[in-house]
Amino acid sequence: MSFETLDELRALLGEMPGPDAAALTGAADRNGHLTKPPGALGRLEDLAQWYAGWRGTARPVLDAPQVIVFAGKHGVAARGVSAFPPEVTVQMVANFAAGGAAINQLAQAFGARMDVVPLELDRPTQDFTTGPAMSEAEVVAALRAGWDAVDAASDLLVVGEMGIGNTTSASAIAARLFGGEAADWTGRGTGVEGAAREAMTAVVAQALATHADAGDGLDVLRRLGGRELAGMVGAIARARSLSVPVILDGFICTAAAATLARTCDGALDHCVAGHLSAEGAHGRMLDALDKQPLLSLGLRLGEGSGAALAIGVLKGAIACHSGMATFAEAGVADG
Amino acid sequence: MSFETLDELRALLGEMPGPDAAALTGAADRNGHLTKPPGALGRLEDLAQWYAGWRGTARPVLDAPQVIVFAGKHGVAARGVSAFPPEVTVQMVANFAAGGAAINQLAQAFGARMDVVPLELDRPTQDFTTGPAMSEAEVVAALRAGWDAVDAASDLLVVGEMGIGNTTSASAIAARLFGGEAADWTGRGTGVEGAAREAMTAVVAQALATHADAGDGLDVLRRLGGRELAGMVGAIARARSLSVPVILDGFICTAAAATLARTCDGALDHCVAGHLSAEGAHGRMLDALDKQPLLSLGLRLGEGSGAALAIGVLKGAIACHSGMATFAEAGVADG
Repeated sequence: MSFETLDELRALLGEMPGPDAAALTGAADRNGHLTKPPGALGRLEDLAQWYAGWRGTARPVLDAPQVIVFAGKHGVAARGVSAFPPEVTVQMVANFAAGGAAINQLAQAFGARMDVVPLELDRPTQDFTTGPAMSEAEVVAALRAGWDAVDAASDLLVVGEMGIGNTTSASAIAARLFGGEAADWTGRGTGVEGAAREAMTAVVAQALATHADAGDGLDVLRRLGGRELAGMVGAIARARSLSVPVILDGFICTAAAATLARTCDGALDHCVAGHLSAEGAHGRMLDALDKQPLLSLGLRLGEGSGAALAIGVLKGAIACHSGMATFAEAGVADG
Repeated sequence: MSFETLDELRALLGEMPGPDAAALTGAADRNGHLTKPPGALGRLEDLAQWYAGWRGTARPVLDAPQVIVFAGKHGVAARGVSAFPPEVTVQMVANFAAGGAAINQLAQAFGARMDVVPLELDRPTQDFTTGPAMSEAEVVAALRAGWDAVDAASDLLVVGEMGIGNTTSASAIAARLFGGEAADWTGRGTGVEGAAREAMTAVVAQALATHADAGDGLDVLRRLGGRELAGMVGAIARARSLSVPVILDGFICTAAAATLARTCDGALDHCVAGHLSAEGAHGRMLDALDKQPLLSLGLRLGEGSGAALAIGVLKGAIACHSGMATFAEAGVADG
């Protein structure tokens, strides 16, 4: 199963599997018999049952999480929208490969395999203020790189990104998909304040004018995204085809994922929001997608870091659900 | 180092170590050079530096967490304040021993050693509406059981509890320490609503009248606490003497810990709040102690479950702090 065009991907999205009804019923029944007062594990109970549904078993395990970090270069970075120079993207890819970045430590801490997928770092996307960031062939290639990067043996996926300028890309996508003014969606990125933030807002406003005729989510991704955003989108779609649940990261990951939700209803049902980022507009985007974040610790790094941290919460939820004794097994009186 | 009386413990609390200034400075310096924008790891950065200060090294590791669950029986349980019968305490201790409870799964998921300390389960405390729950000898014995249960080789402590009726004890302690009406501090416990909650509020109001002349935090603990609350207090104090950081659990653990804070200023400086419980009054208590919870997932189980889940967050924070490359090491341009 794969695709050669955006239309072929659109068709695939319409045929994706949903959660397993028997597993959901079985997991809800099991949850009701575990040695705890009803509801006392709060959101962990919902999480474990959600995961059970996607994994097709009432008593799932989580022991093969995969983290994939995509990297890309943005033509729009030349517009002075980031506090860091564009060459940092390549330098950080080397840091990922050497194991020195935050996401390396978090992947290791939570037992996740980590893959790094640099996407044509010698060929930035076009500046999207004057035309589409990518041609159809370019966005399809990046989507397929994401699709192909998912390990079919994994049981959880975290996608992250690195790309100087991609906060601006994500802001433009969010503004296009969800409406409002450019300034409603421009945050500080990795340290942008003052003049740089004004530059970002102006760039997003220009982009909205240039792409007033954009179509569905995948068209918005092609016009305003970047290769690493498309890589994340391809990986999230592939995870759905494999019934692998996904933890979404922060502002940029969520904007990329939103293009799927705005292409096909329910396309993010297998995704949970890992955290609420310190990017001001992230909460508004999660609200629009009806996703409640698991963590809220003021992270704004990207790389998949907030989502990787949330692997621990999901592991804890599943460990309780699948490992606890029932009242009958433990000989405990059920109040 | 130990104590035979509450006054001897009070004296010990006044001589406890603080964080290591050189480690704090070294950790702050290291944090400023890691390959990420300043502040981009949000609260993880503060957490790692706080942990470094207590562990006395700028680049700490966390690999020997200990979870201790204390259990006790409450005379006040006979007043109909819980949805569960008192014998559930003994049954749950057996469940802890057999590995079937939520806390067993969470301790295992985060690599923690787990100990269970049942405290005189054949001898409930006195009903505190008519007099002190414990004599000085009784509370000192429970405090010492907690003190002695801490492994000096551990590098993080989580304390939890099991004791039917102890939400009422915690509510009474909070009301006594922080003021306000009984109803301000009575929550639903593990499932109490309606008539049972009214019973709980009446019991707490009676207790406040009976113990209007209570003294400092440790006196309040003796009068309104239970053996498992005193066990937690003893363990938290012992952890401080060993410079072992502590993650506090929910409503009952926080109420117990508050008796230390109201005995000696700064006695909880080595403690972080693991989570915000679904118990309505927990947030108010954390505010009074100036502690911001790491997680807020609607848990209200006790056992140390919310704190154990937060071990993952702390592990992630320390892994990033101590494992990441610096800009210079990685050859990344520092914006």
